[in-house]
Amino acid sequence: MWVKNCWYVIAWEHEIPANGLFARTALGEPIVVFRTTEGFTALHDRCCHRAAPLSKGRHEGDAVRCGYHGLKFNALGQCTEVPGMEKAPPHLQVRRYPLALKNKWLFVWMGDAEKADEALLPDNFSNDSVDWKNIPGYLHYDTPYLLICDNLMDFSHLSYVHEKTLGGSTAIAQARPTIEPVTARGQRGFKVSRHVPDVPPPAYHRHMRQFTGNVDRWFIYEFLLPGTLLMHSGSRRVGGDPARDMDEAVLLHSCQTLTPETETTTHYFFQQSHHAACGDAGVTEAIYNNLIVAFNEDRDMISAQAQAIARAPHLTFVPLHFDGALNSFRQLLAAESAAEGQA
Amino acid sequence: MWVKNCWYVIAWEHEIPANGLFARTALGEPIVVFRTTEGFTALHDRCCHRAAPLSKGRHEGDAVRCGYHGLKFNALGQCTEVPGMEKAPPHLQVRRYPLALKNKWLFVWMGDAEKADEALLPDNFSNDSVDWKNIPGYLHYDTPYLLICDNLMDFSHLSYVHEKTLGGSTAIAQARPTIEPVTARGQRGFKVSRHVPDVPPPAYHRHMRQFTGNVDRWFIYEFLLPGTLLMHSGSRRVGGDPARDMDEAVLLHSCQTLTPETETTTHYFFQQSHHAACGDAGVTEAIYNNLIVAFNEDRDMISAQAQAIARAPHLTFVPLHFDGALNSFRQLLAAESAAEGQA
Amino acid sequence: MWVKNCWYVIAWEHEIPANGLFARTALGEPIVVFRTTEGFTALHDRCCHRAAPLSKGRHEGDAVRCGYHGLKFNALGQCTEVPGMEKAPPHLQVRRYPLALKNKWLFVWMGDAEKADEALLPDNFSNDSVDWKNIPGYLHYDTPYLLICDNLMDFSHLSYVHEKTLGGSTAIAQARPTIEPVTARGQRGFKVSRHVPDVPPPAYHRHMRQFTGNVDRWFIYEFLLPGTLLMHSGSRRVGGDPARDMDEAVLLHSCQTLTPETETTTHYFFQQSHHAACGDAGVTEAIYNNLIVAFNEDRDMISAQAQAIARAPHLTFVPLHFDGALNSFRQLLAAESAAEGQA
Repeated sequence: MWVKNCWYVIAWEHEIPANGLFARTALGEPIVVFRTTEGFTALHDRCCHRAAPLSKGRHEGDAVRCGYHGLKFNALGQCTEVPGMEKAPPHLQVRRYPLALKNKWLFVWMGDAEKADEALLPDNFSNDSVDWKNIPGYLHYDTPYLLICDNLMDFSHLSYVHEKTLGGSTAIAQARPTIEPVTARGQRGFKVSRHVPDVPPPAYHRHMRQFTGNVDRWFIYEFLLPGTLLMHSGSRRVGGDPARDMDEAVLLHSCQTLTPETETTTHYFFQQSHHAACGDAGVTEAIYNNLIVAFNEDRDMISAQAQAIARAPHLTFVPLHFDGALNSFRQLLAAESAAEGQA
Repeated sequence: MWVKNCWYVIAWEHEIPANGLFARTALGEPIVVFRTTEGFTALHDRCCHRAAPLSKGRHEGDAVRCGYHGLKFNALGQCTEVPGMEKAPPHLQVRRYPLALKNKWLFVWMGDAEKADEALLPDNFSNDSVDWKNIPGYLHYDTPYLLICDNLMDFSHLSYVHEKTLGGSTAIAQARPTIEPVTARGQRGFKVSRHVPDVPPPAYHRHMRQFTGNVDRWFIYEFLLPGTLLMHSGSRRVGGDPARDMDEAVLLHSCQTLTPETETTTHYFFQQSHHAACGDAGVTEAIYNNLIVAFNEDRDMISAQAQAIARAPHLTFVPLHFDGALNSFRQLLAAESAAEGQA
Repeated sequence: MWVKNCWYVIAWEHEIPANGLFARTALGEPIVVFRTTEGFTALHDRCCHRAAPLSKGRHEGDAVRCGYHGLKFNALGQCTEVPGMEKAPPHLQVRRYPLALKNKWLFVWMGDAEKADEALLPDNFSNDSVDWKNIPGYLHYDTPYLLICDNLMDFSHLSYVHEKTLGGSTAIAQARPTIEPVTARGQRGFKVSRHVPDVPPPAYHRHMRQFTGNVDRWFIYEFLLPGTLLMHSGSRRVGGDPARDMDEAVLLHSCQTLTPETETTTHYFFQQSHHAACGDAGVTEAIYNNLIVAFNEDRDMISAQAQAIARAPHLTFVPLHFDGALNSFRQLLAAESAAEGQA
């Protein structure tokens, strides 16, 4: 169950070589990305002649040449050369995907090209702002993407999965978030706000501030189709002055986004930024290292969950209060997917 | 084809950590085992909330806490705590399996809990008797369990598969065993008795006795549902005095038992004991090492056989005299399994 | 889609041990090959008793003994001994495949034994002629055999897949071959002739001749059922004298043949010979090494193609002029396969 009329991250900008071809699969479709004089292009990574992956061919200027029989395709996906023919037949072409670059991420639009609207790109502003610092992240999951959406829609798991990394207190699980629909700017998703008062700061917050006692923590995020989390989070000493946040608080902005690779595997792109005023390069690295440990904790648990489900797909879940946001997102996804199927 | 109303070995007692959770799958069902103040408990290794394996959580006293969202289950499988709720809903529970400890093995009852009867546990007495010595054994098979039952029901293979380990003479294959049904004590299975007169002793018997010539060998075993072999075997010099066995004979008692893990994989627990009066620790180790070599010979052959069958499932077998006992066991198993299906 | 009434290479002669059993699968059927006093025999590698592979047993004289229960089969596949029985029942036998040795290759006939005709064996003469030199080759493919047939039926790929090994010029792709049916000697297939005038010699030709300028190249081959390429190829300086070939030209003869292992995997046997008058042992080795690199280029591309097809089997190909020969061969194969199915 995927929504196709969406922007999906296909790569970090820096992953695309200056000269060369980059291959990654999204929504079950193999895609080749390469640089052109105009920027980038994304084509179906399958020669229309006999299915050879174009990414195994050669990058020639603004075009790609198939490495099997030498057909050449331009940045629009049109075949411009067939060895041994004077003129390439006009019906020879491969699909071109709308592509956009924003905040260091390359997005492809997997559905109807006419609906591709760059206004729908998520606002991952901290990823290329001088005011914010991060290290780019990527993980591959051998699990369906929906189980990772579930995880991101319910931060109660921080208390247990991430007890020693992002969590640090069972109060996170006990706090009840508020959940509101997001419809502004054409986006479709939910805003989840969770406040956790008077808890010990997690270790990675102490890299940034010299807290001596407990803190108030917050996690305010939007989770948008197809699977993008945009979050402001942080901590402040209990009773701290909101007006002096920049001097006293931990302020983080992060973005995590999911691109289904296949029905059972997923790409996970992420960055967690700290405000530049709050920590040096050592802090940037410490935050990243902590996040990698934490995201491997997630992946380990979600992989185990996915295997358990695959082993006994007939067994059902028992819904609990944790599941409000994730079930709302599943319903939204199902409705959008069904609407696309009917269109 | 499995019989569910049976005790299956889930683990050696020593495999269960003092503090921690032990996971193993039986009959396709993931099971978590842990110690309690009363002994042990075995629960379905799948949180009823969203399928996370409980074994990836934490052992807390006599309970297990799910590592994903923090639900806590007691030794009976009842949920006693949900983070953020005052009281856990009573319908939150996971299946608890009847569990029994006998002769160092932990058994679970995979069928109707009301029928679990400890009187049906096999009598693997030599496993924890001061009069008998062994080293505990375990192997994992990537083959269906029925092919291993076949193997254990027909010792003619000792002459060929185990020519240099347990066998040593083609006379074993030539000897015809007697086969009798076993129904005593509620057990269901067959007793197989094979006498092999006047053959050279196999190498591992010579670790125990200084035989100078040929011996008479015997293999007297019961093979009981679901797949448990209990055997007295040994050798005595040709013409030896039965009344002086303990001084002159090799006397072994062994137990091997199969627990299907999935339709295509199997757990194999085993021990082969020698009488304490007959051999020291070096003999115990030599017997074990010989057995490991021999059981890998079996596994190698049975795996090749399983692959051959999987590759051409439409090809049939040609029945021969070897197959009397194994076919009887297959018929018993099919009848019991059908009866359970109808119940 | 396989044609069964054909000779398939099962092994290089030197692969069969002097004492021992050789196992290889062809057309999904496991086959055991061993030497006899008469030469070689090939039997179904599956004991008719309970499916154990005979190749895991023992080679005894002109017979094989099953390693599970000791049944013995002679070179004709007849069971001659069952342990514990006075006389083996006459219905106990395994299939024997017609087998032929020609030019260092062992062939098995996979269809109706009565149709096995050694006159149909391909004429791979250079493989055991003192006038020709080569090093024997074998590769295993994890792809269906038909995709490799396609590759061998269309040498335009030399310009792209083998740009730096066998190719060296885009003129190869631009040249149009002539394609003629082959029906002589009961063979079924096509003759493909491709002439490429006035191109730089590929590096491996320069091992054999001191070309100073461009050459004329040629590739003249038959591609015969089930998947055997027999080729004369070479190069001669532009304007060279055909009458003085042996002094001035590169002359090669090669044979490559495919044996489907399963629906998705293939054995690839090959040799490329140079005329003994043209190059020493160093040249033989250089040609072989170049070929291994080139054939790995093919395998890499064909594997990627096979995966692309498997991932989206509903997507079709767009036929181009390259595909004339390969489509003719696919049609021939389909027709022969259908005819066998109806027979």
